[in-house]
Amino acid sequence: MNHLPTSPTSPARRSLLAGSASALAAAGLAGLHQGALAQAQAQAQAPAAAAAPVAKPLPGYAGWKKADALIVHSSTTIETRRGAFGTSVITPSDQLYVRNNLPTPPESIVADRDAWQLQVEGVRQPRSLSLRELKSLGLETVAMVLQCSGNGRAFFPSKPSGTAWTVGAAGCVIWSGVPVREVVKALGGVSDGGLYMTGTGGEVLPAGLDPKSVIVERSVPLSAMEDALLAWEMNGEPIPLAHGGPLRLIVPGYTGVNNIKYIKQLAFTPRESEAHIMSHGYRISPPGSKGDPSQPSVQEMSVKSWINSPLPEDGGQAAGLVQIHGVAFGGMDAVKGVEVSTDGGKSWQAARLVGPDLGKYAWRQFVLQARLPKGTHVLASRATDARGRVQPETRGENQSGYNNTSWADHAVTVTVA
Amino acid sequence: MNHLPTSPTSPARRSLLAGSASALAAAGLAGLHQGALAQAQAQAQAPAAAAAPVAKPLPGYAGWKKADALIVHSSTTIETRRGAFGTSVITPSDQLYVRNNLPTPPESIVADRDAWQLQVEGVRQPRSLSLRELKSLGLETVAMVLQCSGNGRAFFPSKPSGTAWTVGAAGCVIWSGVPVREVVKALGGVSDGGLYMTGTGGEVLPAGLDPKSVIVERSVPLSAMEDALLAWEMNGEPIPLAHGGPLRLIVPGYTGVNNIKYIKQLAFTPRESEAHIMSHGYRISPPGSKGDPSQPSVQEMSVKSWINSPLPEDGGQAAGLVQIHGVAFGGMDAVKGVEVSTDGGKSWQAARLVGPDLGKYAWRQFVLQARLPKGTHVLASRATDARGRVQPETRGENQSGYNNTSWADHAVTVTVA
Repeated sequence: MNHLPTSPTSPARRSLLAGSASALAAAGLAGLHQGALAQAQAQAQAPAAAAAPVAKPLPGYAGWKKADALIVHSSTTIETRRGAFGTSVITPSDQLYVRNNLPTPPESIVADRDAWQLQVEGVRQPRSLSLRELKSLGLETVAMVLQCSGNGRAFFPSKPSGTAWTVGAAGCVIWSGVPVREVVKALGGVSDGGLYMTGTGGEVLPAGLDPKSVIVERSVPLSAMEDALLAWEMNGEPIPLAHGGPLRLIVPGYTGVNNIKYIKQLAFTPRESEAHIMSHGYRISPPGSKGDPSQPSVQEMSVKSWINSPLPEDGGQAAGLVQIHGVAFGGMDAVKGVEVSTDGGKSWQAARLVGPDLGKYAWRQFVLQARLPKGTHVLASRATDARGRVQPETRGENQSGYNNTSWADHAVTVTVA
Repeated sequence: MNHLPTSPTSPARRSLLAGSASALAAAGLAGLHQGALAQAQAQAQAPAAAAAPVAKPLPGYAGWKKADALIVHSSTTIETRRGAFGTSVITPSDQLYVRNNLPTPPESIVADRDAWQLQVEGVRQPRSLSLRELKSLGLETVAMVLQCSGNGRAFFPSKPSGTAWTVGAAGCVIWSGVPVREVVKALGGVSDGGLYMTGTGGEVLPAGLDPKSVIVERSVPLSAMEDALLAWEMNGEPIPLAHGGPLRLIVPGYTGVNNIKYIKQLAFTPRESEAHIMSHGYRISPPGSKGDPSQPSVQEMSVKSWINSPLPEDGGQAAGLVQIHGVAFGGMDAVKGVEVSTDGGKSWQAARLVGPDLGKYAWRQFVLQARLPKGTHVLASRATDARGRVQPETRGENQSGYNNTSWADHAVTVTVA
């Protein structure tokens, strides 16, 4: 069988679109973000993008990133362009999204990484450990999808406040560090009554505010400790400041906010943190309501996929063979399979999983070879996890636009000439 | 059991050593390299290294790389520092070694990547295909160790000519592209009598020389086609010019030179190429002799490992617990296990494989937790592949210093205070 296209294809090269309108900050932090934005723009050292204009410059702490692979929403919210994912099973650090809840700490905290101190509480022998000491206790490596809780928010018709992420507040990243369980073992085990693992970020808190109202402190169930790391490397390099270096709590399968950057305290606690970001933020609130502790917390991710090529912004696709490809992940469980539709979900074909399997917390690449005739095609992908749970057609409506796994929302419409 | 070190450890931070003496070019190309070096140094835009001085600036085509992670031997030979591998299962592109046999082509060849043409010969329907056409034929991803044939040459006491690589002319890289077998299928299959897959590089050949004497053209057995790719992405990004973009032939398990950069022709041939680099270069020649076609060609890699931490250049190691870690690969076969010695090979302990398994062509990370008392320790690692072949103690002597897999050569001596 001869699969070769017989007519020459037109050289429609990818043109990266300029950033979409930004949605600045979560309620209550807008003022902070504005200030940080002004400061960051003043320091901005973004290299001139050769391929495409960039709507906003990269802030200083992320100035080493590839500007033309990114959409800069604000100084603390930077998204990977859908067309920049390529066929990556690993997202290169310089293309990975950034979402910081508070202004980024000064570069000085990564000047002497090994001197960083972590206080461990709620264990039989609580104490402070330096990063250098942590490095002697164990080493593990995990590949996992890091995804902002609000990734896909832009597809909510209700236009929730918060950054209007499409697909690019996510990446698949390799972390190296010491397993939390090894640290706990070295400190005599979790104290009686410890039901949650609570991480506290080392950001400098703005003066004049109640710390509880702004501090980044999140609790996850103790069971998440089993696979959690205290990580100092990302993709084989010391974790950049923009991504939480020198030390970050990694909770595989949990949304980004639960992976505490610049972690300064790890505590095993009988109750969830009372910080606002835990008690009222990142809750699945019914539309029209505010977050409160009675609502489900945004923690474990669930099965999701999307197509990265072809995309409308690639320009005119020539009729004929095309490799439809994207990424799929299960959150807490491996991906079992992915189906792809070229007719907006009326019919589905099994895609092929390609490339290395980096474990259940990583994403898989998938590809379907299809022959697309002239016309308009709605391409969609639908993943199934190892437990048989299928990515749903529709989003779960909620006030803040969290956890959008809708395959319909993530479909793309391409025109073939 | 409490593993925690009780005394505070001294903050001995890694100081990256300046590059070792360079050994310029292979015989016959020294003049070319000198010229290219002068040109490249004039264009060099290497950023100032914050952490350590760099002996030579990065050449322009590789100026985006991390200078302080690299040893610049010459304009076309750049090595990853052993201390920069960290705990990476994937080598970041900006830390990956470079070894070009000819001066690097101009940046213009990656300006319109999809327009790059590949001539395919020795198939039933020979023709030229654009990269855009290749992209429609298939998609596969492979993680593999890319390693220069001469990696480890610096450990030969005979001091062979050629770059004095220690361990850093190697990396583990993810490639994406179309399987060669899919391209061949689309062109009607290999013509009768095709016993070799022969790739030809698209470098601009210097005027006044017999092309056969300098062209990069290598043949591998037809069996290597099964897993080979024509790749356009590396680590999720379009392949940089320094690494063979826009299109590179990837032959998993084979040493670097067989992975033809800027590939412009792929031919299925009844005989090996008659180019000098194939017939006389990259041969396992007895010490004192020149390469000739009767000698084994440097092609498949074999089982090897080395330790990346702790290293002598890390400075004084404090007595107590240490995680001894490194990388191990089998070449054509997966790694089954790694042993580590802290007494120069007198006794061995099984290390633990950590991190994701990216397939048989990738490397695995390993770690051994050990308690090192004060004194001097010779740390060594010894890998075994899935077929039970064990990394040897000694190197195979040869004139040009190829294929050094000796565990004794790769041992490191650390002093614990």
